[in-house]
Parts: sequence; C-alpha cells; structure tokens
Amino acid sequence: MAKPYRTSITTHVEGKPHVYGYGLVDIAGKASFSKTIYLILKGEMPDKNSEAMLDAILTISIDHGVEPASVVAARNIYSGGSPVQAAVAGGILALGEFHGGAIEQAMENFKKYEPLGVKRLVDDFVRRGERVSGFGHRLYDVDPRTQKLLELAHEYGFFGKYVKFALKVEEELSKGGKKLPLNIDGITAALLLEMDFNPKVGKGIFIIARTPGLVAHVVEEALREKPVRRLSEKDVEYDGPRPRK
Amino acid sequence: MAKPYRTSITTHVEGKPHVYGYGLVDIAGKASFSKTIYLILKGEMPDKNSEAMLDAILTISIDHGVEPASVVAARNIYSGGSPVQAAVAGGILALGEFHGGAIEQAMENFKKYEPLGVKRLVDDFVRRGERVSGFGHRLYDVDPRTQKLLELAHEYGFFGKYVKFALKVEEELSKGGKKLPLNIDGITAALLLEMDFNPKVGKGIFIIARTPGLVAHVVEEALREKPVRRLSEKDVEYDGPRPRK
Amino acid sequence: MAKPYRTSITTHVEGKPHVYGYGLVDIAGKASFSKTIYLILKGEMPDKNSEAMLDAILTISIDHGVEPASVVAARNIYSGGSPVQAAVAGGILALGEFHGGAIEQAMENFKKYEPLGVKRLVDDFVRRGERVSGFGHRLYDVDPRTQKLLELAHEYGFFGKYVKFALKVEEELSKGGKKLPLNIDGITAALLLEMDFNPKVGKGIFIIARTPGLVAHVVEEALREKPVRRLSEKDVEYDGPRPRK
Amino acid sequence: MAKPYRTSITTHVEGKPHVYGYGLVDIAGKASFSKTIYLILKGEMPDKNSEAMLDAILTISIDHGVEPASVVAARNIYSGGSPVQAAVAGGILALGEFHGGAIEQAMENFKKYEPLGVKRLVDDFVRRGERVSGFGHRLYDVDPRTQKLLELAHEYGFFGKYVKFALKVEEELSKGGKKLPLNIDGITAALLLEMDFNPKVGKGIFIIARTPGLVAHVVEEALREKPVRRLSEKDVEYDGPRPRK
Repeated sequence: MAKPYRTSITTHVEGKPHVYGYGLVDIAGKASFSKTIYLILKGEMPDKNSEAMLDAILTISIDHGVEPASVVAARNIYSGGSPVQAAVAGGILALGEFHGGAIEQAMENFKKYEPLGVKRLVDDFVRRGERVSGFGHRLYDVDPRTQKLLELAHEYGFFGKYVKFALKVEEELSKGGKKLPLNIDGITAALLLEMDFNPKVGKGIFIIARTPGLVAHVVEEALREKPVRRLSEKDVEYDGPRPRK
Repeated sequence: MAKPYRTSITTHVEGKPHVYGYGLVDIAGKASFSKTIYLILKGEMPDKNSEAMLDAILTISIDHGVEPASVVAARNIYSGGSPVQAAVAGGILALGEFHGGAIEQAMENFKKYEPLGVKRLVDDFVRRGERVSGFGHRLYDVDPRTQKLLELAHEYGFFGKYVKFALKVEEELSKGGKKLPLNIDGITAALLLEMDFNPKVGKGIFIIARTPGLVAHVVEEALREKPVRRLSEKDVEYDGPRPRK
Repeated sequence: MAKPYRTSITTHVEGKPHVYGYGLVDIAGKASFSKTIYLILKGEMPDKNSEAMLDAILTISIDHGVEPASVVAARNIYSGGSPVQAAVAGGILALGEFHGGAIEQAMENFKKYEPLGVKRLVDDFVRRGERVSGFGHRLYDVDPRTQKLLELAHEYGFFGKYVKFALKVEEELSKGGKKLPLNIDGITAALLLEMDFNPKVGKGIFIIARTPGLVAHVVEEALREKPVRRLSEKDVEYDGPRPRK
Repeated sequence: MAKPYRTSITTHVEGKPHVYGYGLVDIAGKASFSKTIYLILKGEMPDKNSEAMLDAILTISIDHGVEPASVVAARNIYSGGSPVQAAVAGGILALGEFHGGAIEQAMENFKKYEPLGVKRLVDDFVRRGERVSGFGHRLYDVDPRTQKLLELAHEYGFFGKYVKFALKVEEELSKGGKKLPLNIDGITAALLLEMDFNPKVGKGIFIIARTPGLVAHVVEEALREKPVRRLSEKDVEYDGPRPRK
C-alpha cells in the first residue's frame, strides 16, 4: 500500500540528514547557506554564478522597513503576548498576492508570453482590465533594487530572454504615460526563470528572503516595546449605525 | 501497536458524525450552537443555566472594535492579498498572554489561591513583582461587561466561590489607590471555574467568542478597502545608524 | 485627511462596545451567540427563522473528527510546544479551497448561473474541465448533513430558488454515472444565498463553525498527549537521490 | 507626541532601503545572505569567522526530513487548498518549545549558570524536576550535527566558555546512566552566546534556518500530491462515548 508521505528532499543515511544526497554534516562549513537553499529548492548544487545571483536576490529583499503590512502584522501579534514563531508566521501570512506574491504570477506570465511577444501580453491584459504582475510601485518610479539586480544579471550571465522580455514589457506599459517600472517582484521573477526555477518556488524565495527581516522586527518589538499595541481612536473613523433598540 | 491519533471527541456512526455520542445530524435544529460548543468542550450537554451563561460570555466578547492588535493584524494580512482563512488565523495569533490569554492564567490562580485566601495571593504577587491576571484595563475603571456578567451570574446561579473570590481580590488590589477592576478576562475565568471548565479551555473560549468579530473585520476589509496597507512614514521614527560605508 | 482605519462594525458609546448600534452589554443574556454572529456578519438582527437556520448550519459543521487536514495541522503545531492560539490558527489555515473553502466559490457560481440555468453551468464547467464547487464527497454518496439541512430549510422557509438550483445541478451532474452529491459546502452556500449573505462571508461562516472543534482537539492534545509528534519512518517513502559527493 | 512605531533596523535614504546604515543596493553582490542576516539581527557586519559560524549553523539546520511536526503541519495546510505563505507560516507555528524553541531557553540557562557552575545548574533542575533545554534527542545518542559544529567552533575560534560549559553539563547529565547528548538546540545556543547574540534571537535563528526546508516541502506537496490529505481511519482510535439520546 502507498505510504501516506513520500519525499525526495531529505532522508537519513547512517543517522545523518542528507538533502538531495548531500550530507548536511559534510557540507556545513563548505557550502554557504545560499548554496544550500539553492540545493533544497532545485535538487542540485548551483554553479558559482547561480549561487551569486540567488544570494543577491535574497540579500536585496531582506527587509523594507517597518511600514509594510507584514511587519505591522508581526509586531501586533507579538505585542498581544504570543511567541516569536507566532509573530513571524503572522508576518509571512501577509506575503500574499499584493506583497511579494506577484513573483509566482509574473513567472507564469513571462513563461507564457515570452514566446508570443510583448504586444500579445499587453493586449490580453488591457482587454481583461488586469494589472500586469511585476510592474509598478507605490514608492518608486525607478526601483533601485531592480537596477542593481539588472547590473548583477549582466555580471553573472543571467541577462537572458526573460530579463529582456521583462524590460520590453516595462517599455510598452510605460508608453501610456504613467511610468510602470519593472519592480522587485518582476525582476526577481525574470531572474528565477533564467535560473530555471519552477514558478511554484517564486513566492517561497521571497518568504525566505524576508524571514530574517521579520525576525529582526519581532525581536526589536520584544526588546523595546511594551504590550499591548492598540490603535489610537483618532486613527479610526466609525461610520456604522448609531445606538439603537 | 498504539495508533498515532486517539480521540474521544468525534467519530462516525453509520456514516454520520457524532460528537461525544450525539449525532450532529440529530441535534442540529434542536441544540443551539452555544449548547453544542459546551458539549464539544466539556463532553456533556449543559443544563439550561449553563447554556445561558456560556452564551452570554461568548456574546459579550464577540468584538471590541478595530483598535485591538488582533484586528490590525488580520486586516493587514488580508490587505497583503492572502485569503480570509489566513487573515482570521493571523488575528487569532495575536490573542496571546496580553490579549485574552489572561483567562487561562487567571483560572489557574483562582483555583490555587481560592482555598488559601486573598491575602496570600496578593502577597505572593507583590513579592514576585507580577501583575495579577484578570485585573486592570487600559480603558475602563469599571468594565461594563464585567458588571453585566456578574448580574447574569446571579440570575443563572453561578455567583459562587470563585466569583466571590475574584471580587475580593479586586477590592484588595484597589486598596493601593489605583483602581484595578476585575476585567472581562478575570470574570470570564471565574465563571468558567464555576461551570467546572478545565483552565486549559480558557483561552479557547475567548478565541471562539472573538472569531466572528475577526471574520466581520476581514470581510469589511475585503469589501471596502484597496490593497495594500502600508504605514505612513509620519507614523514611524527611525533611530538607527546613519548611512555608512 | 482620511483616517487609516474606518469601520461600521463596532464603536464605543459611553464606554460600552456597540455592534452595529446594539450594546453588547444590553443584548448579552437576551440575544443568543448565533443571533449576535448573524448581527456582526450582516449588520442587522435576524428574524427567528434566520437565526434558527444559521444556528443549524453552525452546529452541524462544528467538527468532523480527527482525520481532516485542519485537525492534523492544529495538533502537530500544539505538539511542537506552541500555545493554543497558534494551534487553532494553524488549523484554520488549512481551511482552504479544498476544505470548507468551496462555500464562497459555490455561492459565486449559484449567483451567476441560477438566472442562466443548470445546463449552462454544467456546460461551462465541462468545457473548462473544472470541478463544480459544492458537489461530491470522498466519504459520502449522500451527505447526511445535507439531507438534514434541506429538511430544516423547508421548516424555516429557506427552500428557495438557490436551494432548488443546487439540487438540479446535483441531478444533472450525477447523470454521468458517478454520484456527485450536493455536499455540506454546497448546501451551506445555497442557504447563505437564501439568507442574502455576501459570498465573501461564505468561508468565514465555516471558520466560525469549525473553530470550537479545533479548540476541543487542541485541548485534548494538551491534556492527553506528550510532545512532540513525529511521523513514523514506516509512513514515509524516500525516492530522492542516493548519497553523493 | 510619540510616534506609534519606531525602529533602528531599516530606513530609506534617497529612496533606497538601508539596513543599520548599509544600503541593500550597495551590498547586494558583495555581502552574502548569511552576512546580511547577521547584520540585520546584530546591527553590525560580522567578521569572517562570525559569518562562517552563522553560515554553518543555518546550513546544518535547513531541514530534517518530512517527519517533524512542522513539516506535517505545513503539508496538511497546503493540501487543504491554502497558498504557499499560509503553509510555510503553519510550519513555523510548530517551531515551539519542543521543536527548535529550546534554543532561547538554553541560552538563558547557559548565561545564568555558566558563572555559577555545572553542579548548581544540575541541582536546580533536578530539584524542580525539569528537563534541561538543549540536551537529549529522540533519535541520536550522539547528534552528528553537534559534533560537526563543535569541530567548526574550534576552527573559527568560538570554542569558548559557553561551549565548554555546555559540554560539562552534557557530561554531568549523562552520569545518571541514560545518555543525554548536547543536541542541535544546545550547541546552537552555546555558539550564539559565544557570538554575543541576545537570547531573544535564538528561536529566530532556527526559524530562519528551517524556512527554506519548509518552502521545499510545500513546493513538493504542490507539485506531487493531490488535495486533500486525510488521516486513514486505521490510524485513529476513538475512545469516547457510544451513541446516545
């Protein structure tokens, strides 16, 4: 009978955990954490350039300040008196479609439309009245993180067809007048395709990148703030029914 | 060999789910939701007064506005583009030691100190420099919800030794000058002991009570707000190092 | 300037929380928990039949044993040493598209296709190769919970156009040979539409119903089991690479 | 008036995110992800040995197979139809006191008892009848991951007073007969103290290390399994009341 769980990721060999055949005890001290992240997501060790590219993607996305919804959720949860793991988990819960989650969708789009051409992508999205995942940013006209990753993509040899396609989409979308820059989700998506990652991994990469930032914010909340957070009444507008019955 | 899971809560009998021996299909339409909540937490059907008392506890705690940390977490998570279940779960994560979680601790304290007397409890807490769970509130000098539950406790026959003990503790604690009223956590704790609930159930009762409120807030966020929430820069003070290297 | 949060659900009037204008302190002891759930989700107090219908929906879905993914998640989380709120939240996280989450989708479908007719719905789904949300169950040929809710729908006056439409869809789908019964998600969806609930509330109703069951399972894990759960090696098949390097 | 949020972690300088004063755009491609993790948790860049030590701690803990409670929770949540972020968050929720969470407690103990001596620690714990966090493992008599980290601690210059103290505790505890080896939590705790991390960071380090493993398991669940997981009835023992009423 089939066993309820099957996995090709990790098994124990002579009492030692092996990830895709590599003993963690053997590689610790040799393979970097980024290299091992690549291994566990891909099933193979990266070459030097792939490791450097993934490393840069993770580093550049590690945090974006206290303002994002994920950090607000994490700090409020810790403030209520729950442990670190609950607060970090709550922060990760906020990494949905509009907060890092666009990576997976952008990967699917680039994969589908790269062979069909930019015009077809833009036409389809305009017709359906949808935003194209991976473009536009509330704060940036040009996302400096995107610029840096483009530069490194050149250096490490990942300035391939998906990156070029993403830049053409940016150009096309910005013809309308309003600048819709290739954002950090979009460039990450293009680069992960260049590195031949499955789109299903896209959101996970962002979660991995952002977790240390969330931990740092939760620890700061623990060491500097007193429980329990509560919105000030002046930040709330009530527009429901007046007292009745 | 022992099976990995064992339970005395629910099993299927002739294809129908039975909770502690009662077929859900048989009791739906007869037993109220509150009555079935009592059943699943206690293993027995409540009498009329116990049902009414639990019902009032759940009703009075269903929501406390948009200000608490749990609602802020839930709304921020939904705003990031995650589904309703993720946002409600995130709200529940905030129901820690300082936000509803005091019920379990208060139940343990009342159980331990009721036979030993009020003075002993206060002495022990003063000596250890700890706050007594279930007393004091940021907003209220007298918590109107506590007053109402005390009134109903009289009516339903639950004004017993734990409620009386809790009121004596309130009196003793407020001798110091600063009013430390028996709050909603404290009266809930005393009443759950009168109803002979295990302290381990305390936090769960509050979670059950507050979940409909969290659902309502998440649905309101879904129907009225646009993604994605972000703190205004004016609400943030940065006091870390200046740019370097 | 617009305030960051606005709500029409709950506000404080003279220091007392009011939900859609009703003081919780005033209604506790009079309005049942189910009635207050209806109020907070709908903005209005239910009539007697609406209260009874919602009450039956919540009661009949309160638990389905230890086997579902939500309970397994909740018990494993508690077993790792996290508090009750983390374990209950983890259980709720599992209430996704394939585990209660079909209610919202089914409500959307019934709303869209009821005016267009059963044939159109079935045709569209067959053409797209999709399963119709709310039909079929792994365990049941006839879901006894559905039968009971249909009976109560008659009694309380909710056997309207959406319920009838759902039954016609069941009939049409089962013509293919394999029985695809209207399941608990499907009948709940139809009834919530009869009661004029917004589809966005659908998943939330199931979360509210199932939370007491999750609490009961987590408390049972706390009182009866020792940490920490771990799958037996005999339940796991490893099919990844052999040791290398 | 005080602003509701204050942070010393990340701010924007000329539109670019800076972590403790270092521009992420400037360090990406130069500083490794591990180095940036150290920066965001400590507020300073590590020297070469500290980076290597943290890197090895993260690498060696990246995964431990499908068996742990965290992976079971994560896979069941995904299986219910919730998105990747919900499943990974659910896995992190299981990283409580008995599953990685011992690191923080072990750090506190080592810090407190190192000046007082091994005998005092063991006496105190025996008297209170408590387990000492960081010692003992269900699977291992000697944890091979501990051995490797001890070896690297020598190499990188972190074989200091806390590591030595932890080894003496192991020796003392194992005098009783049953081997209680210094486990991965215990050695991680000692090393984080050698590196002068705050104990509050302990659990967070483990969360960061294990997140890529959780992502890999969730992606494997997504790509290889069909929804929805359900325990087999043969794995469940029901010992509650028989049908009644």
